[in-house]
Amino acid sequence: MFSSLKRFLIGRPLKSTELGEQKLNKLKALAVLSSDALSSVAYGTEQILLVLATIGAIAFWYSLPIAIGVLILLMALILSYRQIIYSYPHGGGAYVVSKTNLGVNPGLIAGGSLLVDYILTVAVSVSAGTDAITSAFPTLHQYTVGIAIAMVVFITILNLRGINESASVLAYPVYLFVLALVILIIVGIFRIINGQVPSTLHTPVGTAVPGITLFLLLRAFASGCSALTGVEAISNAVPNFKEPAAKNAAKTLVMMGFILAFLFVGVTFLAYWYGIAPKAEETVVSQLASEVFGRSAMYYFIQGATALILILAANTGFSAFPLLAYNLASDKYMPRMYLIRGDRLGYSNGIITLGLASILVIVAFNGQTEQLIPLYAVGVFIPFTLSQTGMIVKWVREKPTGWVPKLLTNLLGAAITLTVLCIFFITKFTQVWAVLVFLPIIVFIFHQIHKHYDAVAEQLRVNPNEIPDKIEGNVVLVPVAGITKVVEQSLNYAQAIGDYVFAVYVAFDRESMLRMEGKWKKWRPDVRLVTLFSYYRDLITPISKLVDTIESKAEERNYTVTVLIPQFIPKKGWHNFLHNQSSVLLRLYLLYKKNVIVSTVPYRLHK
Amino acid sequence: MFSSLKRFLIGRPLKSTELGEQKLNKLKALAVLSSDALSSVAYGTEQILLVLATIGAIAFWYSLPIAIGVLILLMALILSYRQIIYSYPHGGGAYVVSKTNLGVNPGLIAGGSLLVDYILTVAVSVSAGTDAITSAFPTLHQYTVGIAIAMVVFITILNLRGINESASVLAYPVYLFVLALVILIIVGIFRIINGQVPSTLHTPVGTAVPGITLFLLLRAFASGCSALTGVEAISNAVPNFKEPAAKNAAKTLVMMGFILAFLFVGVTFLAYWYGIAPKAEETVVSQLASEVFGRSAMYYFIQGATALILILAANTGFSAFPLLAYNLASDKYMPRMYLIRGDRLGYSNGIITLGLASILVIVAFNGQTEQLIPLYAVGVFIPFTLSQTGMIVKWVREKPTGWVPKLLTNLLGAAITLTVLCIFFITKFTQVWAVLVFLPIIVFIFHQIHKHYDAVAEQLRVNPNEIPDKIEGNVVLVPVAGITKVVEQSLNYAQAIGDYVFAVYVAFDRESMLRMEGKWKKWRPDVRLVTLFSYYRDLITPISKLVDTIESKAEERNYTVTVLIPQFIPKKGWHNFLHNQSSVLLRLYLLYKKNVIVSTVPYRLHK
Repeated sequence: MFSSLKRFLIGRPLKSTELGEQKLNKLKALAVLSSDALSSVAYGTEQILLVLATIGAIAFWYSLPIAIGVLILLMALILSYRQIIYSYPHGGGAYVVSKTNLGVNPGLIAGGSLLVDYILTVAVSVSAGTDAITSAFPTLHQYTVGIAIAMVVFITILNLRGINESASVLAYPVYLFVLALVILIIVGIFRIINGQVPSTLHTPVGTAVPGITLFLLLRAFASGCSALTGVEAISNAVPNFKEPAAKNAAKTLVMMGFILAFLFVGVTFLAYWYGIAPKAEETVVSQLASEVFGRSAMYYFIQGATALILILAANTGFSAFPLLAYNLASDKYMPRMYLIRGDRLGYSNGIITLGLASILVIVAFNGQTEQLIPLYAVGVFIPFTLSQTGMIVKWVREKPTGWVPKLLTNLLGAAITLTVLCIFFITKFTQVWAVLVFLPIIVFIFHQIHKHYDAVAEQLRVNPNEIPDKIEGNVVLVPVAGITKVVEQSLNYAQAIGDYVFAVYVAFDRESMLRMEGKWKKWRPDVRLVTLFSYYRDLITPISKLVDTIESKAEERNYTVTVLIPQFIPKKGWHNFLHNQSSVLLRLYLLYKKNVIVSTVPYRLHK
Repeated sequence: MFSSLKRFLIGRPLKSTELGEQKLNKLKALAVLSSDALSSVAYGTEQILLVLATIGAIAFWYSLPIAIGVLILLMALILSYRQIIYSYPHGGGAYVVSKTNLGVNPGLIAGGSLLVDYILTVAVSVSAGTDAITSAFPTLHQYTVGIAIAMVVFITILNLRGINESASVLAYPVYLFVLALVILIIVGIFRIINGQVPSTLHTPVGTAVPGITLFLLLRAFASGCSALTGVEAISNAVPNFKEPAAKNAAKTLVMMGFILAFLFVGVTFLAYWYGIAPKAEETVVSQLASEVFGRSAMYYFIQGATALILILAANTGFSAFPLLAYNLASDKYMPRMYLIRGDRLGYSNGIITLGLASILVIVAFNGQTEQLIPLYAVGVFIPFTLSQTGMIVKWVREKPTGWVPKLLTNLLGAAITLTVLCIFFITKFTQVWAVLVFLPIIVFIFHQIHKHYDAVAEQLRVNPNEIPDKIEGNVVLVPVAGITKVVEQSLNYAQAIGDYVFAVYVAFDRESMLRMEGKWKKWRPDVRLVTLFSYYRDLITPISKLVDTIESKAEERNYTVTVLIPQFIPKKGWHNFLHNQSSVLLRLYLLYKKNVIVSTVPYRLHK
């Protein structure tokens, strides 16, 4: 039943050889991997204006130079991530770049902060999408958390079906959003050119603004930079592209850069020109759309597309997280399970982990995840900075032909991202300090995992010079509860594999002990029965003591000790309730505490 | 850690030989086993008056003849349960009596309805006690369910510590309650005799009441009979008494009868004489106490003792349920686990089941369990009737010396209880119909369980004439994931116990398959390696197919098949997350689906 439900939700299992068909072409990849970055347009401008609004509408013209600053940063990031894609075509992005060029710890810091970041991305974007829905239908407000969880589950299932399939579903909304905003910007500018927008709505660029400070401008810039989160996703997911993967990924990245730049600058410019001020109850994009189109069908189309993309931004995390986890796991910094491809050839464990973790975040913050936005902007600028720096080191070390312009690109990128990072810590410390706590913890865990795997590998290594002790024989212990067919079958098997066979009976009172001994002598005089008495009506303690005694003698003579535990296999699941599970407990106890081999002899019930 | 917490809560384990010390003397038994019945005094009179109040205060004098009717029923029940105790000194009460004399199904109906009844008793009485507390401290009202659950947990733990210990704790409140009500009744009557109570407060007995109907009077009588629930508990718990158990139990029963009769008649009489009408916001006992004592310390003492006994009524269920479950389990109508004595010699599984089930009921009804009272009154009159009828059959069949008065006692009892049962169904059908649904279901489940145990016993029986096939040899399969010490150890063991040993390697791609084959040939040419290819990256399917092939060949030659599965035993619990649990899944699959013996070879990691 479980497996048919699974097949219904996820689809039929795919053969490993079908992997090629699961790769993405550029158009689908753009949709899946840039939804996070593109969705930032929906709130990036607003973030800048919110900071400037603390001075007043007179300061809004500063949004234009700030947008240009963000644009320069975007360009530097696109150019340098393009270089990363070509240099590291197996994906892993900031983690691999930092690890290779800067060392293990910078790599783990980059990887760890990206992992956390993708979890936050999913939580924040799904919550934002849910807010858009509950704003439209206020009666749903009390179910916010439930709706958000349902969405995460939906996206998780979609991704478990495979990236190609999820891309097919998700491409439409992304392109709809791009289309909607492009129309908005073009019509908006057309109206300006036509003179339909009075120029009194905005203060001219260059107006002196009393009370403006560098701190405030930097804070506004940092806020605007939150529009750049998600730019790195493509570099993590290069292996998901159709061949030639690196080339396709690089092209997709540049395409995304242009779209993002156009939309961001367009929205910021229009917001400035139309004199739009951020409001608590209405987003900047919504105000803009209603200025340009009125409350027409076009307005609702733009709003709908925006809500959709906010939810789908989560999907970028689902594409990038499992690959990053794979990279960390193949370097033994994360559990091995992240290496396994699931039924549909995705790294399902990564997908499921991301889904569960983001649900946890949503529940923990009761669906109010806005305060996490600065945290996750910082979480993305740390790997930005580290990967740029890593590339600088690479160019200086390797000095390939034409390395100087490449070096300059990354130098510029590193300088800007480091600056932004510093601005974040200076201007928003109260919101981002948590990153300084959890990053060291994550890196510590990575190292603990690595240490464990190394220790295991060392313990498992076969030493050809060391000849293991030859096993001279086998002592077999059969716990028995009475004289039944199960016991008969177990004893026969025990005699087939063992040199010495003991049956063990634990009695809770003297009479049953004597009775058992009497019956046994008549039934199987060939097998020695050891009877033990338990004062405390407990099987495990007396059997475990007997095992100790036998084991120490067996060890001297290089005998192994096997405990044969019969187990009922009832015909129906609920029958398990009707049989005491002492055999299960006994098995686990002996396996974990004693140096014996535990064999389970199934006894299948037919009725 | 778990075991020390357990020891702290429950106490040190007791030896089986200490069982005698856990038996109850009469005083403690009276407290534990009659708290349910005695607590009914707190609401019995009120139930009668509530029905009469639908006519008006003029009808209240009918409460006196109704109380006498209840008294007669009580007497009949006490006398006949006394006879049951002597005839069935091993406990089991109505279940054993009905089963022995009327047949299996009447027995199961009696047993099933009592089991459900005890669960309802606990839920209802704990909820009532919680109501008393939240009435005194209204700020606690929002935590009603939480407080009720905490109380059930507390009583459960107390009972897990052993009946003797719980009796020592619980005896005080029961005797306090009896003392409080005795004082109330004596002082109340004293004031009447002293002429301090005006006789205008009540209508004289015999006043004509317009609009009174037989239906209404019967309904009031049935409501009054709810004061008799819990009378049967002593007969179920005879084995908990100190020797001579039957004699002590019978004496305790009679003692309880006198106390119950005195308190019930006393409260009903005073309520009539003082002209007390039931109010939504104050109980009859509370009104009575405040009439007699004013709001003095004595009033609060009576109220406190009443709240306590309402909660402790639950404890009667905890004494009787496990013993009833034991009786049903030893007849194979309930799972065998109810036969096991826990660390403290109580039947812990029954205690825990009762605790969990009543918490479920409390949660399901959100702590508002009053509507369950009629249901559980019916649930107790069914076994009352069945056990009386059973005794009639017994006397007629066996005809011991002096059987006629015994027969008459039970005839009277059966007649009254059957009448009450009919009255319940006629006058309160909408509240009690559920019993007609769940009783058949419960009896059906009992039979299914019985059938299963019989089938198992038959399948396990050793047939001395049937000589089992001799095992001619053993084929051992060792799934390997690489060349490691674990594999080395497993192969050595496999060679020691097996006649044919195969190593099995499942590859997910061609390269790793060829690589493994090459390495294996150099390392262990003496063991045959079977390599399998899995298109779907899944271990279980290919291995299970191989097992099928080998098994069918082995069966022909009377060979057994053993699959040796190595399992890491990591040093720390969390390390388990770092190792794929495919070996666990493989083991369970093979055990449940294939006819092979599954052996686990532990490999203990030291770091």
